[in-house]
Amino acid sequence: MTETQGTQAAPSRRALIGWGGAGLALGAAAAGGAVAMARTGDDMDPAAAETGGAVEFHGAHQAGIATPVQDRLHFAAFDVKTEDRDAFVQMLKDWTDAARRMTAGKAVGEGAYGGLAEAPPDDTGEALGLKPSRLTLTIGFGPSLFDRFGLRDRRPEALVDLPQFPGDNLDRARTGGDLCVQACSDDPQVAVHAIRNLARIGFGKVAIRWSQLGFGKTSSTTPDAQTPRNLMGFKDGTRNIAGTETDRLKKFVWVGEDDGPDWMAGGSYLVARRIRMNIETWDRTSLQEQEDVFGRDKREGAPVGKAKEHDEPFLKAMKPDAHVRLAHPDSNNGITILRRGYSFTDGTDGLGRLDAGLFFLAYQRDVRKGFIPLQRRLSAHDALNEYIQHVGSAVFAVPPGVRDSGDWWGRTLFSKEA
Amino acid sequence: MTETQGTQAAPSRRALIGWGGAGLALGAAAAGGAVAMARTGDDMDPAAAETGGAVEFHGAHQAGIATPVQDRLHFAAFDVKTEDRDAFVQMLKDWTDAARRMTAGKAVGEGAYGGLAEAPPDDTGEALGLKPSRLTLTIGFGPSLFDRFGLRDRRPEALVDLPQFPGDNLDRARTGGDLCVQACSDDPQVAVHAIRNLARIGFGKVAIRWSQLGFGKTSSTTPDAQTPRNLMGFKDGTRNIAGTETDRLKKFVWVGEDDGPDWMAGGSYLVARRIRMNIETWDRTSLQEQEDVFGRDKREGAPVGKAKEHDEPFLKAMKPDAHVRLAHPDSNNGITILRRGYSFTDGTDGLGRLDAGLFFLAYQRDVRKGFIPLQRRLSAHDALNEYIQHVGSAVFAVPPGVRDSGDWWGRTLFSKEA
Ligand code: HEM
Ligand code: HEM
Repeated sequence: MTETQGTQAAPSRRALIGWGGAGLALGAAAAGGAVAMARTGDDMDPAAAETGGAVEFHGAHQAGIATPVQDRLHFAAFDVKTEDRDAFVQMLKDWTDAARRMTAGKAVGEGAYGGLAEAPPDDTGEALGLKPSRLTLTIGFGPSLFDRFGLRDRRPEALVDLPQFPGDNLDRARTGGDLCVQACSDDPQVAVHAIRNLARIGFGKVAIRWSQLGFGKTSSTTPDAQTPRNLMGFKDGTRNIAGTETDRLKKFVWVGEDDGPDWMAGGSYLVARRIRMNIETWDRTSLQEQEDVFGRDKREGAPVGKAKEHDEPFLKAMKPDAHVRLAHPDSNNGITILRRGYSFTDGTDGLGRLDAGLFFLAYQRDVRKGFIPLQRRLSAHDALNEYIQHVGSAVFAVPPGVRDSGDWWGRTLFSKEA
Repeated sequence: MTETQGTQAAPSRRALIGWGGAGLALGAAAAGGAVAMARTGDDMDPAAAETGGAVEFHGAHQAGIATPVQDRLHFAAFDVKTEDRDAFVQMLKDWTDAARRMTAGKAVGEGAYGGLAEAPPDDTGEALGLKPSRLTLTIGFGPSLFDRFGLRDRRPEALVDLPQFPGDNLDRARTGGDLCVQACSDDPQVAVHAIRNLARIGFGKVAIRWSQLGFGKTSSTTPDAQTPRNLMGFKDGTRNIAGTETDRLKKFVWVGEDDGPDWMAGGSYLVARRIRMNIETWDRTSLQEQEDVFGRDKREGAPVGKAKEHDEPFLKAMKPDAHVRLAHPDSNNGITILRRGYSFTDGTDGLGRLDAGLFFLAYQRDVRKGFIPLQRRLSAHDALNEYIQHVGSAVFAVPPGVRDSGDWWGRTLFSKEA
């Protein structure tokens, strides 16, 4: 695989203004089925990233999971509004076409702004002139989808409903969903545009149940890059699965051939949690307490007693309730998840406090061996709990990638041949 | 004035990764009192901008008005919680110090992460390692502030309460405020960090009343740059006052020496309106209708009957209720405002519709000769009204710039010598 294979030669939405070279170095992720980065560290500099090329839409796995994390997120959960299976399948096909075009930096529809005077434009237009900006669109199916369309038998065993955890304070209006689309891009306008156009194409068949904008990534899947900081001011994503670690991805993220059901092979499971931070309380807490909570230092991100961010943590040096100590695989029989969360700030809560926190996204091969046992432990013991509250929750089965231009999102689930 | 004078040599929060040259070309706006751009077109490429240097904090006018528009916004309106004038003045001084540091890319406080183990850090930390990203912080004083601290006589005549306009559907929770801070930056994390740290410094003296994140600029004050598109898909900001047009800024934006009161000379007035768009309705409207509504074409942005975006509009060729026709100075005795709005998307409204639109920001020399008469006309006749609703509103007196390192926000209002 060459360095540039991940970058499509697709026409860019925005004319290049002398950054052509940077674009080449940046094209990211999944080319030809295997997920591999053209270079590690590609998501390091938002400036460089924002000139970005297109991420390949086709592959064995969906893009947007092992892909180097883009800077911005628009995530939407949808409810199904139709009982007509054929109409729903047609929508999935239409979505796939639109996603294929948008991730390549093209407008939705061939004659996006031409056509009949009486017809609405095929594309809403606000991304016209913008570059692909590494847009990825990743679809997932929620447990409730399987109550519809005669899909009951096809629900994966691993797609369990999440239990209620201690401390959960879930807002029903931000919880659940029959399906979801995660749009990540270095340009928020590109991510917002993508979700909106899918919603528009889905009109009458699906409606947005809730959506979340993430303004800054909190995780890195490229460990050589500068690790981003979350809204508590700590580096986040230090110990994460890298998009280049094919073996660990296979072991912890991708559903295997033998895991069942067949239609999920090459897919993954996504847990989304809207985690509100008690920013004002946190900000009045001493540095020592903050560092104790995580078991890492704030400036460098080094584990307690160590000097450098990437030094191996010595868990026993941390307080027993330190977040990192409790979350570390060594404390959890090796449990490992891929984190891909984003910071959010959604104004204020009516009490003069910022409605801000972490929109936690984690991918794993089996929720029962990933998020659930991990969060059971954290929700019971984590020192961080004093400063956070889980207020939204959802889980989705994320099907494998769209293989080629004839394939479509959900084919393995809906089509008889699969 | 040299090309690079606007760029401070301040240490950047993030190590430069080979974009040094770009940084120089980008440092923007007000240097040494006169507001002038180092180059027009500096806000053209978000990618380039995001490598950005620091915008000079000191000057005759506050930065963030004529400064080339940055990509992202965090805007906060605050209510005063103290009756102690000295404490409030001290907070303004502390804010000024913090703003001076943050706009230069530094953490708040000298020993931001050092100090006593028992003390909270001086800075919340999430912008550590990030570049200044052209951060500007602009303060404004709302009408209600003048009911406090014995300021009644000092309220500018031009700072009128906005009338109720036809169609207004204002949410009190997103309206008004004793003061405001507009944070603009090419990096949202930098803008969010700035507001949060000011809120933290102000704890007990002020509390955030409402805040708004803007993810994409909808206006340009650099007409040579590519004009951004709003969420209706149209280029926005084509005909705006450019930051380089010293004469028009003087005529329409800056409060003059003779306008009164003295303490406002060099300042401006800001109107903020949260304007929700009926996205779903708009998206099902024909291209023809959409273009009729604005009086410009969607792809190019050219006025009706013309070929190019910057061609002079021929108003009579437009429908009588076209937005551009009604808003144009020729239809309004020459009324001209500086627009600096941002797109927002704040999830959904509980009815499956995106809560999205334009956070409209306009600066002018006198609201009574700017926004008010203009909006009276628009609210009564504009074809756009079918697709939008004003849901939040505020007006602020924006004092002149902080002159030097001894000066502070609000000195001309609060200090006896002024
Ligand atoms: C607002 C909530 C949270 C915050 C602010 C937060 C923050 C952090 C930080 C700063 C680290 C250390 C740096 C790193 O290795 O990434 C970390 C590590 C980690 N967190 Fe969280 N986290 C949160 C919630 C969660 C949740 C809900 C889970 C899973 C249920 C989780 C799982 C992990 C894991 C697995 C690690 C890596 C531990 C290791 O291998 O050393 N975190 N988190
Ligand atoms: C969601 C609400 C709005 C949208 C989507 C919108 C959009 C636009 C667009 C697309 C243009 C043409 C391009 C340009 O010259 O910038 C324009 C022009 C303009 N708009 Fe708006 N606008 C909105 C609200 C307002 C409001 C509330 C005002 C003032 C009260 C206003 C004042 C103007 C002015 C002065 C112009 C320039 C007219 C000219 O000189 O040709 N707009 N607007």
